[in-house]
Amino acid sequence: MKKLSILGSTGSIGTQTLDIVKSNPSEFKIAGLTTNKNIELLKKQIIEFKPEAAAVMDREKADLLKEKADIDVYSGIDGIIKIAKLNDSDTVVNALVGSIGVLPTIEAIKSRKNIALANKETLVTAGSIVMDEIRKNKASLMPIDSEHSAIFQCLNGEKIEDVEKITITASGGPFRAYTKEQMEDAKAKDALKHPTWAMGNKITIDSATLMNKGFEIIETHWLYGMSYDKIDVVIHPQSIIHSLVEFKDKSILAQLGYPNMKIPIQYALSWPKRFSSRERQLNLAEIKNLNFEKPDFERFPCLNYAYEAGKIGGTMPAVLNAANEIAVYAFLENKIKFPDIAKIIKSMTDGHKTIKNPDLNQILDVDKKTREAAKKAIENKEYQQ
Amino acid sequence: MKKLSILGSTGSIGTQTLDIVKSNPSEFKIAGLTTNKNIELLKKQIIEFKPEAAAVMDREKADLLKEKADIDVYSGIDGIIKIAKLNDSDTVVNALVGSIGVLPTIEAIKSRKNIALANKETLVTAGSIVMDEIRKNKASLMPIDSEHSAIFQCLNGEKIEDVEKITITASGGPFRAYTKEQMEDAKAKDALKHPTWAMGNKITIDSATLMNKGFEIIETHWLYGMSYDKIDVVIHPQSIIHSLVEFKDKSILAQLGYPNMKIPIQYALSWPKRFSSRERQLNLAEIKNLNFEKPDFERFPCLNYAYEAGKIGGTMPAVLNAANEIAVYAFLENKIKFPDIAKIIKSMTDGHKTIKNPDLNQILDVDKKTREAAKKAIENKEYQQ
Repeated sequence: MKKLSILGSTGSIGTQTLDIVKSNPSEFKIAGLTTNKNIELLKKQIIEFKPEAAAVMDREKADLLKEKADIDVYSGIDGIIKIAKLNDSDTVVNALVGSIGVLPTIEAIKSRKNIALANKETLVTAGSIVMDEIRKNKASLMPIDSEHSAIFQCLNGEKIEDVEKITITASGGPFRAYTKEQMEDAKAKDALKHPTWAMGNKITIDSATLMNKGFEIIETHWLYGMSYDKIDVVIHPQSIIHSLVEFKDKSILAQLGYPNMKIPIQYALSWPKRFSSRERQLNLAEIKNLNFEKPDFERFPCLNYAYEAGKIGGTMPAVLNAANEIAVYAFLENKIKFPDIAKIIKSMTDGHKTIKNPDLNQILDVDKKTREAAKKAIENKEYQQ
Repeated sequence: MKKLSILGSTGSIGTQTLDIVKSNPSEFKIAGLTTNKNIELLKKQIIEFKPEAAAVMDREKADLLKEKADIDVYSGIDGIIKIAKLNDSDTVVNALVGSIGVLPTIEAIKSRKNIALANKETLVTAGSIVMDEIRKNKASLMPIDSEHSAIFQCLNGEKIEDVEKITITASGGPFRAYTKEQMEDAKAKDALKHPTWAMGNKITIDSATLMNKGFEIIETHWLYGMSYDKIDVVIHPQSIIHSLVEFKDKSILAQLGYPNMKIPIQYALSWPKRFSSRERQLNLAEIKNLNFEKPDFERFPCLNYAYEAGKIGGTMPAVLNAANEIAVYAFLENKIKFPDIAKIIKSMTDGHKTIKNPDLNQILDVDKKTREAAKKAIENKEYQQ
């Protein structure tokens, strides 16, 4: 039986993780739960799953919950880290959104917890530090997103040195067929109609710019120690093939399934076993066609920025991530146009002097300063070329 | 270094195996070679690969070769079995065509050789006996065809009890889009234009009737201990996905590549390693579309006959195979119409009283008698319904 702490248990990944726990009561026990501020749902989860402790990022909301709950309730980032380090847990599911997720991952690994990782920022901004800690503490790091879960499954029983290429599939997002002119006028509400995956707003915009795929390229680099020239992206609108691994004998393995986060979440938790699931069986004859096309780096420059930032390394991916986050939220609030997201990122990365081999404080400092600079640039419209 | 004996070294699989040996001189040594009657090519192979011994099925041709070669040359089925049991080899590649391949496989396993198996009849007619011998002698049995190699690779690092379904892909063959009426008039030369795979004549007709896929269903049953209700077929005209394995968590693994026998042959020989290969890298964006459809059991009744014969077991699959072989050669010689192949098979299997748990002699006897009966039925046109 695995004892889980779920960071971000009230979000999309968090609630799906709890569904899996519920379906497999003999396999999992909940040690700790955290939320940003959704204390109503957290309270229900506490009653149902009986964790030892919980944490709420928002301090006022935490105080409200403390009055009603009869378990330890912590608050703020320190509270979240406490849950990440709980003695009673062996595995931490990090389903936090944003760079807030980095520190709890590292603290959990230092406490020798195994990690099931949905938080993209952890590896994008601090991949080198995280992987070092994983090795040092002999912990395991299981990816939760569908693409990296696919790669992990294709590598089962294989040697990483036999891999010639990893191909990450991308749905192409809601603007796959948009011209550059159409993109100029694209609104957040257009992007939020994602063709295949139901996700949060931030990540849906990342999917529209392909930055989401850019982050996955950087994560692949760290998770599998793969150089960037061996990582490819192919557009596959149906999102049925979740990624592919090519070996040096030109044999390719792929993992497939309907777009359904339950499968990669459960695999991250059940590994090295597989548990049964009642999700829908894939029926290729019903799907009929799987399509593929090259990504267009001109219409989707963010993909290229991610490759470049990844190759430069050091603090550059943290700049990429922070600039993107601020730009995406500005777009969601209709403060900037869709193509401005890429422009803001480019102006921030162009202006950054990379620190090589940064420690975590330097990364978090760059993250903070980039956010401030990006906000200022948006206010003053300084990113226009 | 592996020491190989290749049974059927002058055929399509045999010569491709020797190409791989040539490309990996530090990995393989040739112990023995055999041919049906192509002694010109065998002689060249003897000079190039310097085996310890060779065998020729045709006794007259064997005598001719003996005069010219300075190694031991054996003849007939006994000669082939001698090569299968050579002391100096550790692995036997069985690339024989037809039920002649069964006995040498079993004798090789009894001599504790590992087997790389291209001969379909071995498992179709004698699967139970072969798998028993494999277990008893702790030998390994590696499939050479693309579909079973795909399944094997998908199962790497996985547990067979976690498998919920195996889906074998089929190109659909040259008559995939033919109506029943068009099939009535289909000629051998039409069938021999196979859309994706370059193969021998017999196997190309088996691909046109989908009997080839039927045999693979039976082989899958034996290779992976899979019950028939867990084995599916999907038509996939591009032959890029070579087969798929679904696990109980609804995650699916697939193996992909251009239609190219070199990859599965090399994998069967390199396993548990992978060797480099200079074959073409798969490019999905260039391929653009992968299509899938349900097999039509009405237009392709042979697929159903294979399921039925497999489920009945005992000597029934040997009848299926023998009747098919005679019918296919009669079709190739324009003695019967294309739909008659299925009719002949049906009349032979309908007329057979299955022997349960047969020994090898009983299987070979049923094989022989079915051939005689099928030939007679064709002469007398007794199979017409």
